[in-house]
Amino acid sequence: MDVKIDILTLFPEMFDVFNYSIIGRALKNNILTINTFNIRDFTEDKHRKVDDYPYGGGAGMIMSAQPIVDCIKKVKANNSGNVIYLGPRGKTFDQSTAKRLSKEKELIFLCGHYEGIDERVYKYIDMEISIGDFVVTGGEMACIPIVDSICRMIPNVLSSSESYTEESFYNGLLEYPQYTRPEYFRGDGVPEILLSGHHENIRKWKRAKSLVMTRDKRPDLFEKISLSEEDKELMESCEKNDKY
Amino acid sequence: MDVKIDILTLFPEMFDVFNYSIIGRALKNNILTINTFNIRDFTEDKHRKVDDYPYGGGAGMIMSAQPIVDCIKKVKANNSGNVIYLGPRGKTFDQSTAKRLSKEKELIFLCGHYEGIDERVYKYIDMEISIGDFVVTGGEMACIPIVDSICRMIPNVLSSSESYTEESFYNGLLEYPQYTRPEYFRGDGVPEILLSGHHENIRKWKRAKSLVMTRDKRPDLFEKISLSEEDKELMESCEKNDKY
Repeated sequence: MDVKIDILTLFPEMFDVFNYSIIGRALKNNILTINTFNIRDFTEDKHRKVDDYPYGGGAGMIMSAQPIVDCIKKVKANNSGNVIYLGPRGKTFDQSTAKRLSKEKELIFLCGHYEGIDERVYKYIDMEISIGDFVVTGGEMACIPIVDSICRMIPNVLSSSESYTEESFYNGLLEYPQYTRPEYFRGDGVPEILLSGHHENIRKWKRAKSLVMTRDKRPDLFEKISLSEEDKELMESCEKNDKY
Repeated sequence: MDVKIDILTLFPEMFDVFNYSIIGRALKNNILTINTFNIRDFTEDKHRKVDDYPYGGGAGMIMSAQPIVDCIKKVKANNSGNVIYLGPRGKTFDQSTAKRLSKEKELIFLCGHYEGIDERVYKYIDMEISIGDFVVTGGEMACIPIVDSICRMIPNVLSSSESYTEESFYNGLLEYPQYTRPEYFRGDGVPEILLSGHHENIRKWKRAKSLVMTRDKRPDLFEKISLSEEDKELMESCEKNDKY
């Protein structure tokens, strides 16, 4: 077993989403394990309640500290990884965080629900990550893509044919346009250069398209790139010839 | 039936994630419908293949145009909403996009997989949305939180006790710290002011905490806020008294 991820949640069934596709295959091959722990199983309340009204008033219910903290304690007995809470105060998740966390052997994720968690739980949390500037019904919705993104960077999770070295964001650029058979699809062809077999020209075309695409669609990413002399020439000639 | 969302995917089972919690309740109450369509059912290939090697070489497999375009065509016969592709060239999803899309009566989401889709599919797409600057194993991983975020803004999806008017990002600020019973949890108390019953002081405390939290944790959001005179005073007195 290479990597262990434990997820604390009120909705363990939601993580059945990982039983399919690439992550499902990695789980079957024991490259990683994903365990879920139901926070509700740790409540000391006789009605199995996990939330209560907020002190000082306000809408919504707050998740109580006791079941969460006791669930963390239990999980930490067999997992020495950091406790990561999915919440809005955290740094926005990105590919560099995915890469960094994919090097860890053990990780613990805590999913909140309802209006949030009792502030006193923060003492037991090592790191907070935000999925982005939008609100979801529960931390599960942030945890799912984040765990997926981390896991696919773990060695042997992607097969050799699924290499990630040319994909979007890998080198800070959007990916160039991709085409597959047939050569004509309902009136639309494939750029001739891709059929030419001329590797050097194809490399240049891909680089040019990637640069122009990033400049036009994601100027914020493009600003961070330092362009080589070749890059500048490629973009210029791309402008003259065709649009992507 | 109020709102209809159709999702085109190679992994329809992944969307069982919506059978639980708040979205699950909304589906049961017919406030919204989420249908999935398996792109593989639309392939004309006798081996039900949906992908092929990229023209011009490179790692990975590209999703072929034919099954996707025919699936879109079928779905559009009963859904007049925009076709939204989850991909890296799109504008990064945020709460304002969630609000805007939650006002639509019909929406169509297209999830790509493998190394991407044949560029010629773009002609059949109305809008591209990115989940953020990280890579996932498939568009499903972006679609899940995005559909969740949109759906919870649809009227009657959240119950009255789950109001969203005080939550993070609603007013451009992070939420203030929340506490619920018990008053003491393993040595940690609740800020006295929240127990005082003094509504005006509580309101000021919440506003001050929200402002200071946003300034310290998310300076990029804080910059966009125009502070009132009261805000400035509240932050100053918050500094003098305690830390959140």
